[in-house]
Amino acid sequence: MTRPDPSEPHELSRRSPFLATLGVSLVERSERQATICLTVDEQHLRSRGIAHGGVIAALLDTAMGIAVAEHSPEGKFPVTAQLDTKFVRPAWDGEDLLATGEVCHYGSQTAVARGEVRTAQGVLVATGSGTFVFVVDPAPGQDRLPRRPD
Amino acid sequence: MTRPDPSEPHELSRRSPFLATLGVSLVERSERQATICLTVDEQHLRSRGIAHGGVIAALLDTAMGIAVAEHSPEGKFPVTAQLDTKFVRPAWDGEDLLATGEVCHYGSQTAVARGEVRTAQGVLVATGSGTFVFVVDPAPGQDRLPRRPD
Amino acid sequence: MTRPDPSEPHELSRRSPFLATLGVSLVERSERQATICLTVDEQHLRSRGIAHGGVIAALLDTAMGIAVAEHSPEGKFPVTAQLDTKFVRPAWDGEDLLATGEVCHYGSQTAVARGEVRTAQGVLVATGSGTFVFVVDPAPGQDRLPRRPD
Amino acid sequence: MTRPDPSEPHELSRRSPFLATLGVSLVERSERQATICLTVDEQHLRSRGIAHGGVIAALLDTAMGIAVAEHSPEGKFPVTAQLDTKFVRPAWDGEDLLATGEVCHYGSQTAVARGEVRTAQGVLVATGSGTFVFVVDPAPGQDRLPRRPD
Repeated sequence: MTRPDPSEPHELSRRSPFLATLGVSLVERSERQATICLTVDEQHLRSRGIAHGGVIAALLDTAMGIAVAEHSPEGKFPVTAQLDTKFVRPAWDGEDLLATGEVCHYGSQTAVARGEVRTAQGVLVATGSGTFVFVVDPAPGQDRLPRRPD
Repeated sequence: MTRPDPSEPHELSRRSPFLATLGVSLVERSERQATICLTVDEQHLRSRGIAHGGVIAALLDTAMGIAVAEHSPEGKFPVTAQLDTKFVRPAWDGEDLLATGEVCHYGSQTAVARGEVRTAQGVLVATGSGTFVFVVDPAPGQDRLPRRPD
Repeated sequence: MTRPDPSEPHELSRRSPFLATLGVSLVERSERQATICLTVDEQHLRSRGIAHGGVIAALLDTAMGIAVAEHSPEGKFPVTAQLDTKFVRPAWDGEDLLATGEVCHYGSQTAVARGEVRTAQGVLVATGSGTFVFVVDPAPGQDRLPRRPD
Repeated sequence: MTRPDPSEPHELSRRSPFLATLGVSLVERSERQATICLTVDEQHLRSRGIAHGGVIAALLDTAMGIAVAEHSPEGKFPVTAQLDTKFVRPAWDGEDLLATGEVCHYGSQTAVARGEVRTAQGVLVATGSGTFVFVVDPAPGQDRLPRRPD
């Protein structure tokens, strides 16, 4: 596990305030795979002193989403349509977590990915999978999607 | 939607630093149902200026978990074993979100719940469901679970 | 529960040999909802004498799929992209099961539905939900999709 | 893919009439993994001439269930609590399908597995995962579970 230099504001944090708040960093990204990391601290905890399920789900969604986004069809970007999260073991305060996402399938309309969250020691914390839908980017090159009327 | 008085530190926030960070409040809790709320702001956003999927998953997990916890068997507490999140519409900066969780089934070992996230105007943002497992509470009455060796 | 007249070969069975084999009949179909039924018999059983999980998943997929198909965009038809099945109680030999599917959301590319399987006495057997993707019909009006090369 | 000798009535078919009807055979079973096979024919089809989603879900549930059952705690057996099925590509009449299940996690109360369905040529048809709960066997050594009152 190569930890990114925390003194350098990271691409993920620049683009997503939520990932900046959580303290998520990109570890590595390749053709169809991505790995991110987070150190569990007080702010991530639910009752009983363990990481909240939403933190784990966020890690899986992010790692798989980065992996899928590498190959979006021209003019489109992927949105998560469905996220399955299976919790295996609590994540404790102070633990370093690594989340990996891997693409299983690219189609013209959808992609399927799977992911895992493990401790730095390799102990499985959660598994997940996602269905992603490619949607037309209404504002290519812009930071913010224009809001659609309901 | 009755908004809780923000000047009063709320039970959810006292017990869960993550929910305090997100700004989640309890709206209402009854026999087999719970409703919580959150106002989307800058800190919840992913790239493209919409709420991160992990925020939505956290709302569903929390609302369903509160609903399920009402009836845990004596000496046990529920943990989320599986969380299904289906994303329907982006949640935009400034929107008030309401998440409801409802118990579908109580068994001796497991419970099943379903949930929804809607805007204050009633527009569907996400649906979800969860399988919860009742585990023996190793530290009844204490705030923190003792850490288990792997 | 209005049982269809078994002497009349039913639309579902005509169109799907698998549903004919299982013995699934349509009970009712309305704007955004569909109900189907099946009587559990020997052929549906897994080991231990209870209905196989695949039978329950098939009921949920079918009921939700019929509900979603009612409103497909012109020239498109829905395919199941993701199916979540939560098993609550075994279904026993001889029981009449009713499966309902209900549309939660229609979009231009996807639809989301949820479903339930209950006994004729109303006891919950399973809950489920599905994400459906609308794909262009390559052979409108024909019984069989032309096979695509991989 | 070693195909089992069809002249020998197979263990899976003996124990599960549903798997016998579908024509599912065990290919191989090891420590934490199982592979089964099925040749798609007319009886497995939904409308439009492709395999019904329930057939694919049944393959995933079965392959993962066999893998998990290998290590059940003494006096217990696993039941599927949740099954996630992600459909990637239609399965066509005449195709040989291989489904594999692999255990990701064994706990004292639950197990988590993941699975895949591929054609004999290795093309991905579906991915899946399951949460299994170990329940006390009320009738050890007997073929049928005694029916519980609701």
